[in-house]
Amino acid sequence: MTAVLLVGEGREYLREPGETLETDLGVLDVPTDASAGDVLETHLGTEFEVRELRGPDLFNHFERTGAPMLPRDIGLLMGHTGVAAGDRVLDAGTGTGVLAAALGRAGASVVTYEQDSEFAAVARENMTLAGVEEETTGGSVDVRTGDVLDELGELDRRFDLLTLDTADAPAVVEHAPDLLVPGGFVAVYSPFVESMRETVETLDSVGMDADTYETIQREMDVDERGTRPSTAGVGHTGYLIFARK
Amino acid sequence: MTAVLLVGEGREYLREPGETLETDLGVLDVPTDASAGDVLETHLGTEFEVRELRGPDLFNHFERTGAPMLPRDIGLLMGHTGVAAGDRVLDAGTGTGVLAAALGRAGASVVTYEQDSEFAAVARENMTLAGVEEETTGGSVDVRTGDVLDELGELDRRFDLLTLDTADAPAVVEHAPDLLVPGGFVAVYSPFVESMRETVETLDSVGMDADTYETIQREMDVDERGTRPSTAGVGHTGYLIFARK
Amino acid sequence: MTAVLLVGEGREYLREPGETLETDLGVLDVPTDASAGDVLETHLGTEFEVRELRGPDLFNHFERTGAPMLPRDIGLLMGHTGVAAGDRVLDAGTGTGVLAAALGRAGASVVTYEQDSEFAAVARENMTLAGVEEETTGGSVDVRTGDVLDELGELDRRFDLLTLDTADAPAVVEHAPDLLVPGGFVAVYSPFVESMRETVETLDSVGMDADTYETIQREMDVDERGTRPSTAGVGHTGYLIFARK
Amino acid sequence: MTAVLLVGEGREYLREPGETLETDLGVLDVPTDASAGDVLETHLGTEFEVRELRGPDLFNHFERTGAPMLPRDIGLLMGHTGVAAGDRVLDAGTGTGVLAAALGRAGASVVTYEQDSEFAAVARENMTLAGVEEETTGGSVDVRTGDVLDELGELDRRFDLLTLDTADAPAVVEHAPDLLVPGGFVAVYSPFVESMRETVETLDSVGMDADTYETIQREMDVDERGTRPSTAGVGHTGYLIFARK
Repeated sequence: MTAVLLVGEGREYLREPGETLETDLGVLDVPTDASAGDVLETHLGTEFEVRELRGPDLFNHFERTGAPMLPRDIGLLMGHTGVAAGDRVLDAGTGTGVLAAALGRAGASVVTYEQDSEFAAVARENMTLAGVEEETTGGSVDVRTGDVLDELGELDRRFDLLTLDTADAPAVVEHAPDLLVPGGFVAVYSPFVESMRETVETLDSVGMDADTYETIQREMDVDERGTRPSTAGVGHTGYLIFARK
Repeated sequence: MTAVLLVGEGREYLREPGETLETDLGVLDVPTDASAGDVLETHLGTEFEVRELRGPDLFNHFERTGAPMLPRDIGLLMGHTGVAAGDRVLDAGTGTGVLAAALGRAGASVVTYEQDSEFAAVARENMTLAGVEEETTGGSVDVRTGDVLDELGELDRRFDLLTLDTADAPAVVEHAPDLLVPGGFVAVYSPFVESMRETVETLDSVGMDADTYETIQREMDVDERGTRPSTAGVGHTGYLIFARK
Repeated sequence: MTAVLLVGEGREYLREPGETLETDLGVLDVPTDASAGDVLETHLGTEFEVRELRGPDLFNHFERTGAPMLPRDIGLLMGHTGVAAGDRVLDAGTGTGVLAAALGRAGASVVTYEQDSEFAAVARENMTLAGVEEETTGGSVDVRTGDVLDELGELDRRFDLLTLDTADAPAVVEHAPDLLVPGGFVAVYSPFVESMRETVETLDSVGMDADTYETIQREMDVDERGTRPSTAGVGHTGYLIFARK
Repeated sequence: MTAVLLVGEGREYLREPGETLETDLGVLDVPTDASAGDVLETHLGTEFEVRELRGPDLFNHFERTGAPMLPRDIGLLMGHTGVAAGDRVLDAGTGTGVLAAALGRAGASVVTYEQDSEFAAVARENMTLAGVEEETTGGSVDVRTGDVLDELGELDRRFDLLTLDTADAPAVVEHAPDLLVPGGFVAVYSPFVESMRETVETLDSVGMDADTYETIQREMDVDERGTRPSTAGVGHTGYLIFARK
């Protein structure tokens, strides 16, 4: 059962229906049929509104096993590849799982590999929170513990999209032409120039032209003094590399 | 029936199964059961590979009635709102329809308003190409001719997401709190500072805090001389404004 | 007499020749003939090297009466206007005086107006530190207390460059054609879009076409893991507006 | 004698006093005492105004032997190093000479090396146009034909600033500590990540910490529709590396 957000007094809590919220604002049993828009009350009378989890909530509430990919980078990856409901995605490494969850929520069937078994266990719980654990209707995310390079022989090689956020990316993309359907995409997130270049060169060596993007996103300040880009800059996250079979 | 791409000799053609491709490379009847990966041959012996349409293909092959939103901006909108399969989206104005199509392909049910009836007719054909015309399974896009401001009274007011790429945005967002479910998002694409500010101020006046982003995306050049950001810059597209109920 | 930097033990102190440095590292009398490269010793034996003041030192050691313009913005202003030794510059408002000092050090004769008399006094001391107080050889900076708008009638109207970092900029640029030699430049630093636009429109109304620039500067991280733009972004400072008579 | 600009009918011509301008607008003898603001007339009656050459004019009117450094990058170099009148600068390679000319015009004494003797001859003529040929009062630029690496032994090693726009930069910066006064700056313009990194690592190996900057500059569009960053982006030029002795 998908978790819901309880929002009140400027706070947010994530609970599954049937669970109990205990805070200094009182105790609240979340009904098993809680649905978005319901207003619940703690035994001390504090009101919490029930909300469905949305993408940005996953970023904020997932248990983290590393720095998760930012919503903007997940979005850019979705926009440049045009990922759609029904797509089959091969992902490595899972990490916190925000990318896999976002793709699953957009209707894709995602198989994702995480080498660290503890991280994989956390990612599985995160997929349950996101409502995309295996075997639900619509999109789904199957978190597998292991190294995708060891499993390539076992995989049905008909993926629409291969997404990589791992230091192994150059070694994996060498197999991209074998893993993808015609017209399928590779998308790689790569923080450093050197690893980015190695991935681009490997893609080139297997006949796939890469387009690599760097994105600078700034918030705009709009207040009574006027309008301007934020004086607090947003720094570099990673290069996004795209190639198509 | 969803159109397919025919790719060969460095060219791409979009045809529906059952149609005929006639070019200087020969004549080719596209079988009604054509599917991705099939290799077809013209009567002159030129081979074309069949590919499924993907998001970026829509951007390239849709008939245009104006400048369509770039894949990067569509992606950023999806990433920042976390749009998911099953979401209900209200969109205005449709234009070429690339945003509505992308949301529909990610499993959302989209109602989109276009004031110009000829543009709306083109957008409907584009939705057919994208496989998201009304009443298919999964996501869908219902293109309606008209001004969304005139129709607000008629709409079931339970949208997860309100997306606006129209000069009317400030007038529409005034109704955002009535149109959205709790936790639902408004996303507005706004090319100019002045219109962006008017939208942000209107959202503020109805109790919704806005975050506004500006995005600079550059391609990286990777060649034998070295690695560097492209000397051909990518210019401004629009500000993206997000607010949550 | 121009101040010198005393650099040692990872610290920097600014003193004029003849002054005494007293710190926990000991007491040091700065000889009146101290010159760059000399190594001086405190009574406790700590060595300090004498350095000439350079532009970036002014930014770090000037007494501040507000946020000084960044070295990058001063440089951009110098590069876009091509300011040269012998140029006559009219500047308002002085503030901390880093721009006026940089122009004076590049050989220009600068007259600068500061409305706040305490700020003007601080700026005068900063000019002494920079070695560009009035009547030295080479460039010089004459800090005047007052509102440049009140003084326009008194000024000899043959400036090569008019530089403005003041909320009054739109009112001042209205007089730019009267103040400048043919081919002379106006340069305005403007933090907000609205004030920038007002300046650009006023320049247009007096027959001067403006070019307005926004600059994003990022540091690159180069370490053993690889090379990448800094994850700590540098935010917006101000728009730079240039127009030529 | 420094050349002047003749500006009229939307055109600009560069001539030295005493020369003749012959165009379809008529013939005009430039008086030897022509000075800024004079209005001259061709034998056909077309008026030209005399203007002093300024920095941006050098960029537009110098004979080019390669892509000259942009005014913005020259300015950033001047701002980050705080170059001042009287500074001694060692520059390589000269190229078109816009950087050397700008530094000379700001009062610096510049020695610049160009390996290609034809390029060096063009640069010398450009310095004459800019009024900074050797032995004038104020700043000056001495263009020498040769490889700076071969001449290091001959140079008086007391430079305030070492500026490099050459593929040899890593080899030259190895000698930076020997060439600079205490507190003196190295500034390197480097188009590619790989060469930039090699320069940074070499500086590190000789005990000089480098700060490397990348700059994105955009023009703002201000018209009746509104205000926005230009839709025509400005691309990458080069990384700027700064280190201080």
